[in-house]
Amino acid sequence: MSKLYIGNKNYSSWSMRPWVLMTQAGIPFEEVMVRFDSFDATSQFKHVIGAINPVAKVPVLVDGDLAVWDTLAIAEYLAERFPEKQLWPQGVAERARARSICAEMHSGFTNLRGNCPMNIEASLPEVGARLLAEQPGVQEDLDRIVQMWTELLDRHGGPMLFGAFTIADAFFAPVGMRIRGYGLPVPPAIDAYIARVAALPGVAAWIDGALAEKTFVAFDEPYRTSRD
Amino acid sequence: MSKLYIGNKNYSSWSMRPWVLMTQAGIPFEEVMVRFDSFDATSQFKHVIGAINPVAKVPVLVDGDLAVWDTLAIAEYLAERFPEKQLWPQGVAERARARSICAEMHSGFTNLRGNCPMNIEASLPEVGARLLAEQPGVQEDLDRIVQMWTELLDRHGGPMLFGAFTIADAFFAPVGMRIRGYGLPVPPAIDAYIARVAALPGVAAWIDGALAEKTFVAFDEPYRTSRD
Repeated sequence: MSKLYIGNKNYSSWSMRPWVLMTQAGIPFEEVMVRFDSFDATSQFKHVIGAINPVAKVPVLVDGDLAVWDTLAIAEYLAERFPEKQLWPQGVAERARARSICAEMHSGFTNLRGNCPMNIEASLPEVGARLLAEQPGVQEDLDRIVQMWTELLDRHGGPMLFGAFTIADAFFAPVGMRIRGYGLPVPPAIDAYIARVAALPGVAAWIDGALAEKTFVAFDEPYRTSRD
Repeated sequence: MSKLYIGNKNYSSWSMRPWVLMTQAGIPFEEVMVRFDSFDATSQFKHVIGAINPVAKVPVLVDGDLAVWDTLAIAEYLAERFPEKQLWPQGVAERARARSICAEMHSGFTNLRGNCPMNIEASLPEVGARLLAEQPGVQEDLDRIVQMWTELLDRHGGPMLFGAFTIADAFFAPVGMRIRGYGLPVPPAIDAYIARVAALPGVAAWIDGALAEKTFVAFDEPYRTSRD
């Protein structure tokens, strides 16, 4: 069975994507949690992950001798290995669109990602309101998310972005966590999509794990000084 | 025939990747050049690209009604559509590794990318030496590139990263342009790989196009004040 190395469920948005994908699709794997730390020279995290992966980041999927790193490469590897799971949309054009938005997520939305790091247990609506007022780039990223999801939900009729659950929903699940945690205002149809994603068994299991951690990593907490 | 929308050949490293891939692999396409400008509200670039692509960036591949944006999604689309071109390595493990390093390129090497923007016609070795001395992140990115390429060239015996030319070589071709232009020191085997890539007909044709442009875009020129 393959092993998926991940970081803290409360904080690691990139780890969330393949974990949710595999869990929701029913692909068995062994979870190996390597908790975030200072990431400095003596870092236990860098020591453990660096031994299996040249870039010393999570997530990494280890399948026998093969280490696959980076969420997009893991997603493509799984889509090839488990074609019966239909992880990508089945139509050529829809699959190309799904890959386009996943790649857009992979390299973009830097204002939203930088200003609103994922923190599933935290409720930070005042921070969200301030960021929207002070950082035009956050609103621009949010506008693009709303436009993208609205168009796809309209086109395919939901419940997920391309009808049934695909890699695209796993890729944007952490964005839904951010919108909720920072209280960013979105139209009702978008709010309803986020609620449907959060209710997927694979996503709900990740959220439960995040809430059970009860760990405070200062490095990932620009807005809180403690968990209380 | 599909249309590939690109930016200036001298500056647009992301445009270079699919253009080189299609040209080198012999996949016919029509090139549509949309020159970089200020990217502000009155920008002709944003106007033209925004009409075909929701994120208003290049490259975009337009195939009939379908617009595929972002280099990684374009690469996967082409690999599916032209399986006989063997754009990815043929072995499962090698293909996963190639996707891992392409995804690493897609979201990473931010110090090298930010400090050493591609500028094919410029020769900036003094800038490169200063950046290496002042910005530890540039040296770290360069070290990782050298480690990655050395390992792959040793493993597969060259001449390209996975033996024959694949998407991975197209993805890292702009990095070779940066190493040359900024005079960043690399071992002889790496220098030889960069020279082999630059001599590929698909890459040489891009470089020729870049040198023929003779355009100065201040937005993309942190180190020069003019072309002379």
